[in-house]
Amino acid sequence: MIVEMREVASEEQIQRVSEYLVNKGLDVHRSACARQTLLGVVGTAKAPDVRDVEGLPGVGDVRSISSHFKLAAKAFRPEGTIIELRNGTRIGGDDVFIMAGPCSVESRGQVFSVAEAVARAGARCLRGGAFKPRNSPYSFQGLGERGLKLLREAADTFGLLVVSEVMQIAQIEVMLPYVDILQVGSRNMQNFDLLRALSHVRKPVLLKRGIAATIEELLLGAEYIMAGGNYEVILCERGIRTFEPAVRNTMDIAAIPIVKMLSHLPIVADPSHGTGCRDRVAPMARAAIAAGADGLLVEVHNCPDRALSDGPQSMYPDQFESLVRGLRVVAPAVGRKLA
Amino acid sequence: MIVEMREVASEEQIQRVSEYLVNKGLDVHRSACARQTLLGVVGTAKAPDVRDVEGLPGVGDVRSISSHFKLAAKAFRPEGTIIELRNGTRIGGDDVFIMAGPCSVESRGQVFSVAEAVARAGARCLRGGAFKPRNSPYSFQGLGERGLKLLREAADTFGLLVVSEVMQIAQIEVMLPYVDILQVGSRNMQNFDLLRALSHVRKPVLLKRGIAATIEELLLGAEYIMAGGNYEVILCERGIRTFEPAVRNTMDIAAIPIVKMLSHLPIVADPSHGTGCRDRVAPMARAAIAAGADGLLVEVHNCPDRALSDGPQSMYPDQFESLVRGLRVVAPAVGRKLA
Amino acid sequence: MIVEMREVASEEQIQRVSEYLVNKGLDVHRSACARQTLLGVVGTAKAPDVRDVEGLPGVGDVRSISSHFKLAAKAFRPEGTIIELRNGTRIGGDDVFIMAGPCSVESRGQVFSVAEAVARAGARCLRGGAFKPRNSPYSFQGLGERGLKLLREAADTFGLLVVSEVMQIAQIEVMLPYVDILQVGSRNMQNFDLLRALSHVRKPVLLKRGIAATIEELLLGAEYIMAGGNYEVILCERGIRTFEPAVRNTMDIAAIPIVKMLSHLPIVADPSHGTGCRDRVAPMARAAIAAGADGLLVEVHNCPDRALSDGPQSMYPDQFESLVRGLRVVAPAVGRKLA
Amino acid sequence: MIVEMREVASEEQIQRVSEYLVNKGLDVHRSACARQTLLGVVGTAKAPDVRDVEGLPGVGDVRSISSHFKLAAKAFRPEGTIIELRNGTRIGGDDVFIMAGPCSVESRGQVFSVAEAVARAGARCLRGGAFKPRNSPYSFQGLGERGLKLLREAADTFGLLVVSEVMQIAQIEVMLPYVDILQVGSRNMQNFDLLRALSHVRKPVLLKRGIAATIEELLLGAEYIMAGGNYEVILCERGIRTFEPAVRNTMDIAAIPIVKMLSHLPIVADPSHGTGCRDRVAPMARAAIAAGADGLLVEVHNCPDRALSDGPQSMYPDQFESLVRGLRVVAPAVGRKLA
Repeated sequence: MIVEMREVASEEQIQRVSEYLVNKGLDVHRSACARQTLLGVVGTAKAPDVRDVEGLPGVGDVRSISSHFKLAAKAFRPEGTIIELRNGTRIGGDDVFIMAGPCSVESRGQVFSVAEAVARAGARCLRGGAFKPRNSPYSFQGLGERGLKLLREAADTFGLLVVSEVMQIAQIEVMLPYVDILQVGSRNMQNFDLLRALSHVRKPVLLKRGIAATIEELLLGAEYIMAGGNYEVILCERGIRTFEPAVRNTMDIAAIPIVKMLSHLPIVADPSHGTGCRDRVAPMARAAIAAGADGLLVEVHNCPDRALSDGPQSMYPDQFESLVRGLRVVAPAVGRKLA
Repeated sequence: MIVEMREVASEEQIQRVSEYLVNKGLDVHRSACARQTLLGVVGTAKAPDVRDVEGLPGVGDVRSISSHFKLAAKAFRPEGTIIELRNGTRIGGDDVFIMAGPCSVESRGQVFSVAEAVARAGARCLRGGAFKPRNSPYSFQGLGERGLKLLREAADTFGLLVVSEVMQIAQIEVMLPYVDILQVGSRNMQNFDLLRALSHVRKPVLLKRGIAATIEELLLGAEYIMAGGNYEVILCERGIRTFEPAVRNTMDIAAIPIVKMLSHLPIVADPSHGTGCRDRVAPMARAAIAAGADGLLVEVHNCPDRALSDGPQSMYPDQFESLVRGLRVVAPAVGRKLA
Repeated sequence: MIVEMREVASEEQIQRVSEYLVNKGLDVHRSACARQTLLGVVGTAKAPDVRDVEGLPGVGDVRSISSHFKLAAKAFRPEGTIIELRNGTRIGGDDVFIMAGPCSVESRGQVFSVAEAVARAGARCLRGGAFKPRNSPYSFQGLGERGLKLLREAADTFGLLVVSEVMQIAQIEVMLPYVDILQVGSRNMQNFDLLRALSHVRKPVLLKRGIAATIEELLLGAEYIMAGGNYEVILCERGIRTFEPAVRNTMDIAAIPIVKMLSHLPIVADPSHGTGCRDRVAPMARAAIAAGADGLLVEVHNCPDRALSDGPQSMYPDQFESLVRGLRVVAPAVGRKLA
Repeated sequence: MIVEMREVASEEQIQRVSEYLVNKGLDVHRSACARQTLLGVVGTAKAPDVRDVEGLPGVGDVRSISSHFKLAAKAFRPEGTIIELRNGTRIGGDDVFIMAGPCSVESRGQVFSVAEAVARAGARCLRGGAFKPRNSPYSFQGLGERGLKLLREAADTFGLLVVSEVMQIAQIEVMLPYVDILQVGSRNMQNFDLLRALSHVRKPVLLKRGIAATIEELLLGAEYIMAGGNYEVILCERGIRTFEPAVRNTMDIAAIPIVKMLSHLPIVADPSHGTGCRDRVAPMARAAIAAGADGLLVEVHNCPDRALSDGPQSMYPDQFESLVRGLRVVAPAVGRKLA
């Protein structure tokens, strides 16, 4: 249920409506729009009758939401969510937000070399895995906290933010000092306990779509994070599994405009995992921006042929530079700009 | 097998190499590149030894092609195919080629109204179904030849070309006087007898990807048409079937750069069938062009709510005009222009 | 609309109801159930008001059918369809109906050898392709009419029926003298003109599910054949396309009980195409029968390693014999028997 | 790498080969076959040269394993794994092992009523969720430890084992006193940290296939559990996500014989989640057993219409009884029996 307070509603009226709903056993999430206040009412308790709520002082309109996601629904923040980060970066506004870096952090030399290259090309955030989810128990599993330290140092040196993947609840505390954005990988999109734990963190979460997750399931994953009070969720389309053998995954570019219709959350695209092949990253990156994506997550490696993971889909630094140059031309065509 | 003749090879040498191969029971397809002549050698007979062919006078290089498609392979025409049509339209070059019109031809008023609108907006070709493949035998099956006449008249009135779907061999003769491009629908992409019949026609064929066809199967469908001598094939990505229920189909935008790597044939995108919903057509059309598509096939109806087929995915004329306006900005970003 | 005549309705009353509906522009299909007559009313004309039809003499009950398939719907023949063929074979009753033979007819020696083996093992019908739909134009395309003659001779020699694939309308006349069942392949399941032509034939049609066709689309394909008056349609589940790379196709065994709930038509399974690997044919054949299939279509070759098509999925004759032996034990567990 | 010791190899020789390999930084897993001992050699360190190992005293044969799963591979235990549980139940042998019960534990009355019914019908193990992974944060999330206590009491009363789902590492300790088998749900099949934690537990793990996981990925999940020393893994096919809308999931029955070819681990089927509809559970259960499954996991509820989760796919107790009765006839046809 979304309660739309009148423009002239007083703070006291808003408080009283909130209390009324909390007393019914519900959670109330408050969203300040430009002109009025919206209250998102969620929870497992039975919702009160719409007419009862409409009768409360200061209430303008009351709408029930039929979709299963409530706080993630467009109606909760019709103007769209913009996430602001410490170096002035804004995700979800006019800027195209670019995150780039290696699949895994492998060494100081590697991460500094890549960080310098992607910063120079125009990225605002350094990506890199310290804890790696690998299909085989015998594959390289990441450097752990040492990798996080290297990421942070390299990012600070070149004026970048840091995004890195969290795989389990116990890693959250370890990661917080080092990262600006916590990434949930596609294999964990429905690890509901992890999502719930992240709902109590005060840092943005980048939630990647599961390889066979529907768009509704992705938004329900975001709902888990928001239900605990963390509204800073960035969604990520990274390719789904289909019958087509020519690609590692099939990028569902249409998910971008569909998410924009259903939700207020920003959505970025990961054309590296989405295609699995560096030669296809640039056209798919352009396609994602042309379809309305708020940003990109791109794998770049100083020496892809020797990468410990995801080499074939990692771009060379000069390929990445040329990709960003191309985006500077495409972005204005959809009303966007690159920082 | 691709035989690359030397730049200095004489016409007589080319003829002699051709005869040598024909005498082995093979078909030889000749392709004149800017600087030299290529011979595509195909057929069910056993290919001769590469070294024997390399020894013939005038032969530069001989490559065997491991993919199952030969004439459709990039190597057969590395510079790419450009199809030229009578009103100066070129498909596969720098121009973005736009085909638009109603799903089905329903009446003179409808087709003239839509033709005028799409011509004014910037389309070069009028689309419209006269023979309709419908899942149910009780649905509207099209106006047949009367529909073709209406299409031709409306197109001529507004300076457009005509593309329309052929469903069976017997319709080819009926359609030829009315259409400039023969469309093969996705349900018939593997109707091999129809493809073979179209290989003897001297008009371009627009071959739509089957709903569960791999990219290789699409190129093999083109190969059937080319094997009989008709090289003017335009491929079309129109969405594949996946688990995602939010869309009618999932547009496989990555198929566009992949086809560009594997083949010399032009490829267009159909965002109307690809999404099944008019509100998603514009972002997906932009994405397709940004990913390198040579053109678009778009459903437009003067009154979508009363359309006899595909109403929900047909754009209003003013939506289409706005779509084309947007493409005029995106196209230059990928080195393309709109006529 | 299904009109259920009273048990005591006279022939004259049935005729009058039929005429009433035909005069409204509709087609009436008559089905004689054990105790009463059902009239299936279909067509593109608007259906009359249910209450008007209920008022006609002899009419018991009138039901509208909301599904898109009407004649193929369970309600049209609640007791199930049984197709009887000339050698006493019944498809859709208690017997498990087994069709077996090579993918393609290759030579007299091959087809006689396989026919003898499958007849001895317990098959009632010989399968074999004379016209072959091949993805590549350079693959073996079948022996044509000569292949049909060989099939017929071999089948007659060993007391078998013949099923073979028809790929286009022009082949129907050629095939009729040689075959007992006309097979429509999965690539042609939505070749609506071919289905319509087969609706005027008086021989059973085996309709294979398209590789990405939904169960509803399969039943709509059957509806095309029935709408023209040919009610003898046998459906065939043969695997669908999914993301799983370990198999050529994923057999959708659940389609069997679902078809049994929605339709009165018999359904068989093709575990050879369904798995693409001979070692998996036997367990999937058992699974299909255990799930309620009315029969099987199995590829058997006397020398699979030298087969011109589908070698890896063709069983050796002794494997097939062992498969049938196993089915003789499984069938009674689901109330079925093998002839 | 699999090292096959000679039949006559002494315990000392086996120990020396193990030490040799451990000193190279590898893990050695020992498997006692009927006639000889196999050593499975795994780890991230480089494998030694095959010829060096072959030269060690007592070594018969050395094979490298090309698949990514090693301990889960057929070659590691060619005779197949049989898991023995405390009430004499054996999983993976001739017996068909049936687990049944409600989706969620809801109340004492419910769980005792269902336990009694399924025990009487022939189940050996009670299933029931205490911790529930739900797509929406607002759905019923399970009774937690109280649910586990109820399960245990009901199971003990009626002579059943208990299987229940573990969602996160922290729940393992809580669950161990109550359950005989720990279930990992399909959403957690690639929660590698959870799998690793379960590798140190000494209770069998039931690993459900992810909704879009390939068979290889399922076996790699098992490998994570085995790599830590827990060899008692039971795989479970529960349906995959495809384009077909008529079912919640498409049961991939062919996965059963494929797993049997690739691995020594037992595999069961879950026709309740596999179909999402109680009327299709019985035919699919029969199909799974006919294809070679070692057991079943079935949802049964005393009052499905009031179930807090998965009502539509839960069987009525009498339907379940009739299902098991049917299996008593099918099982012997594939060399199996019901306890």
